[in-house]
Amino acid sequence: MAMTQDLAGSVQVLAFDIFGTVVDWHGSIVRELHLLAPQVDGDAFARAWRAGYRPAMARVAGGELGWTRIDDLHRMILDGLLPRFGLAHLDEAQRRHLNRVWHRLDPWPDSVEGLTRLKRRFTVCTLSNGNIGLLANMAKRAGLPWDCILSAEVFRAYKPDPATYLGVAQVFDVAPHEVMLVAAHHDDLAAARACGLRTAYVERPLEFGPAEPKDVAPQPGNDLHCRSLVDLAERLGAGAGLVGRD
Amino acid sequence: MAMTQDLAGSVQVLAFDIFGTVVDWHGSIVRELHLLAPQVDGDAFARAWRAGYRPAMARVAGGELGWTRIDDLHRMILDGLLPRFGLAHLDEAQRRHLNRVWHRLDPWPDSVEGLTRLKRRFTVCTLSNGNIGLLANMAKRAGLPWDCILSAEVFRAYKPDPATYLGVAQVFDVAPHEVMLVAAHHDDLAAARACGLRTAYVERPLEFGPAEPKDVAPQPGNDLHCRSLVDLAERLGAGAGLVGRD
Repeated sequence: MAMTQDLAGSVQVLAFDIFGTVVDWHGSIVRELHLLAPQVDGDAFARAWRAGYRPAMARVAGGELGWTRIDDLHRMILDGLLPRFGLAHLDEAQRRHLNRVWHRLDPWPDSVEGLTRLKRRFTVCTLSNGNIGLLANMAKRAGLPWDCILSAEVFRAYKPDPATYLGVAQVFDVAPHEVMLVAAHHDDLAAARACGLRTAYVERPLEFGPAEPKDVAPQPGNDLHCRSLVDLAERLGAGAGLVGRD
Repeated sequence: MAMTQDLAGSVQVLAFDIFGTVVDWHGSIVRELHLLAPQVDGDAFARAWRAGYRPAMARVAGGELGWTRIDDLHRMILDGLLPRFGLAHLDEAQRRHLNRVWHRLDPWPDSVEGLTRLKRRFTVCTLSNGNIGLLANMAKRAGLPWDCILSAEVFRAYKPDPATYLGVAQVFDVAPHEVMLVAAHHDDLAAARACGLRTAYVERPLEFGPAEPKDVAPQPGNDLHCRSLVDLAERLGAGAGLVGRD
C-alpha cells in the first residue's frame, strides 16, 4: 500500500495501450462479422486478422514498407484474409466499412468508469500503434474521456520503439518515471520499463475470446497488477468520490 | 440559411485555432503578471510577448532554428523581454512558471458551452501552433472537451504551412472541404481556404485587450462569420437540445 501511495504521488501521466487493454477487439469483430456473414467462423477470423498485425508492423519497422498507418495495414491484412474465409466477393465499400470495425471497438465494461475516475487525478492519454483518427473515432463512439490522444503516428514509430514511450514523457515535459504505461501485454510493459516508465498490468483473460483464455498470472517487474481499470483507479487513490487532484 | 444547412451536412470535422480564438491570452497574461509584479504594465508585456511569436516561428520555418516547440520559443522570447520590463531578477523556477502561463490561459466565456454543443454533432479538434502538452494541459484546466488535440507538433510544421490544414483531413480520412477551420484571424483562414477547407471567422474584439480593440468587420471569403462559439453552434444546427448526430 505504501508503494501504491508513492506511485500515486509521483506519477503524473497514465498512458494506455488500447487494443485488448481498453477495448475488446475480439468480441467486437466477432459481433460485426456475425451480422455481415453469419456462416463465417468469427472467432477464427478475428484472431487471424489480429495475428497479421505484428508481421505487418515488422515490415514497416524493418524498412520494407515506408511509414504506414494501422488503418492501411489492417486493410492489407484483410484483403489477404477474405478469400480464406469465403468472403472474396465483398466489394470496395463493404471492405472499407469492415476495415473500420477497428474504429468501432467496444470498451471492456470497466473502461469508461475507470478512465473517468483516473482522469480526475492524472493526465490520461492513449499510447497505441493505432492511428490518431482511429483512436479519436473510437473514443467519440465509446465515450473514452482521454485528455490527449497519442499514437505511433505522432512519433512516426511503433511500439516497442523507445521513441514512443519516451515521447510521452517529452510531450508532457516530465521524467520517464512520472509516466505509467497501463497494458494487458507483458512485452509492451517490459519495453516501457526499459525506458524508465512505471508499469501497470491489467488482466484481460478474454482478449482472444472465451475459446482461448489468456494466462493473466502476475509476472515480476510491474509496479501494479490489476483486475480492471476500476481496480487500477482504486489502487491509485482515484476513488469514485474524488472531484479533483489533491 | 440554406448554405448553413449545406455546411452542417457536409462538414465532419471542426478544427479550432486556439490562442485568441478559444482562449484569451491577453487577459490571462495580464492577470498573472499583475499577481507576480503589479508595477509592470501587463498590457504592454502581454502584447510584446505575443509579438515575438511570429518572428520566432519564422526562424524555424526558415531553417535558422531546427524544429522547436512553442514552449521553447515562448521561453526564448520571455528571456529577452524580462530586462525590458525590469524583471531580469526572476530566477529559473519563476521564469519556468511564468512561461507556463500559456498552459493556463482562460477560455472566452462562450468557449466551453459552444464546444460542448458542437461536439455533439461534429468531431472537434485543435489546430494550433501550440505544442501538444501545452494544449492538453490547457484543455484539462479549462474544461475544453476536445475529441482530439492536433498541433503543429504532430505535423512538424507551423500554420500557415499547408501540411497542417491538409494534415487534419488526412488524420480523419476525409476530404479537405469536410473540414472547417474556426479562427479569429483572417490570414489563418485564408491559408486554410487555399487548401480547400471551409472557414468560419469568430469575432474576438478584445483579443489584444480593451486598450486596442480589434477590427472584427466581416471580410469576404469565409463561409461563416460568428460572434462567438455559441453563435457558431447555433448557425450549424448544434443546438442546446441535441444529444447526438442525426
